[in-house]
Amino acid sequence: MSLINNSDASISFHAIGEIHTPFREAAGTPIQTVYGQDIQGSIVLKESYAAALDDIEGFERLWLIYWMDRVAGFKPKVVPYRDTQEHGLFATRSPGRPNPIGMSIVRLLRREGSTLYILDIDMLDGTKLLDIKPYIPEFDSHPVSRAGWFDKPGVDRRTADTRFHEK
Amino acid sequence: MSLINNSDASISFHAIGEIHTPFREAAGTPIQTVYGQDIQGSIVLKESYAAALDDIEGFERLWLIYWMDRVAGFKPKVVPYRDTQEHGLFATRSPGRPNPIGMSIVRLLRREGSTLYILDIDMLDGTKLLDIKPYIPEFDSHPVSRAGWFDKPGVDRRTADTRFHEK
Repeated sequence: MSLINNSDASISFHAIGEIHTPFREAAGTPIQTVYGQDIQGSIVLKESYAAALDDIEGFERLWLIYWMDRVAGFKPKVVPYRDTQEHGLFATRSPGRPNPIGMSIVRLLRREGSTLYILDIDMLDGTKLLDIKPYIPEFDSHPVSRAGWFDKPGVDRRTADTRFHEK
Repeated sequence: MSLINNSDASISFHAIGEIHTPFREAAGTPIQTVYGQDIQGSIVLKESYAAALDDIEGFERLWLIYWMDRVAGFKPKVVPYRDTQEHGLFATRSPGRPNPIGMSIVRLLRREGSTLYILDIDMLDGTKLLDIKPYIPEFDSHPVSRAGWFDKPGVDRRTADTRFHEK
């Protein structure tokens, strides 16, 4: 097959800033921002990107795209935080992925220059930020979308343990 | 400041598969999957990741995270597709970004081994896939979230032109 001749070529990105949060380790960190409501954090963007934040104050929520640098690697089948059964990794939101790219919806409190103060936190302190995109309901919101095993989760777990972070 | 000592260090990811779509060039490609309703495409995942797809059929929608390899670069201020005014890049969903990482919500039609047949397409043919995450309304859906300039878009444009792709 001609599929992906350069499949092992690496694709390089770089940090545009850093996310500061109250969480130093996975255990106890909210597993999603809906479970980290009202927890405060901040984003310190590189100065050179400050102008790219103009008009961001109009948006209530932002997508943060970031590198989950402290996960322990990747298994094709996992028991996710919200279940007792194994599922294929791509049918879960577990952080240990072939490319550990996280995406979280946070609420924007205010901007000061190249710093954003945010609410609703589920990432570790010092996480490297790759992108910020405005949350746009017309594009991003599908309130009724069938969600497989998650529609009957086996566990009401809202914070992480160490299963995806222990080396 | 101690911020981001290794700010220029590169963070490396790799393609887990490739997205096949009817679109060979930016001009005419839907700018979001909500504007590419019912257009069909497919994902050919590397065989080694096939097991990680198990149970994905239960999900109606998936997030695709991918590398927008054909954008022309990054400007801090842009006139986005849906407006006539300039805005800070991070207050827009424009593809030309410091890290050109795309994210799109597609509908899953069916899985055959390591291939996923999908609907609602807004990416170019041959786009390298970085991650697949299930769309989970409890995490991802905020139907009423203030969206700044986008709440009164200046233009009802639904397909791209060449502004972010011309070198």
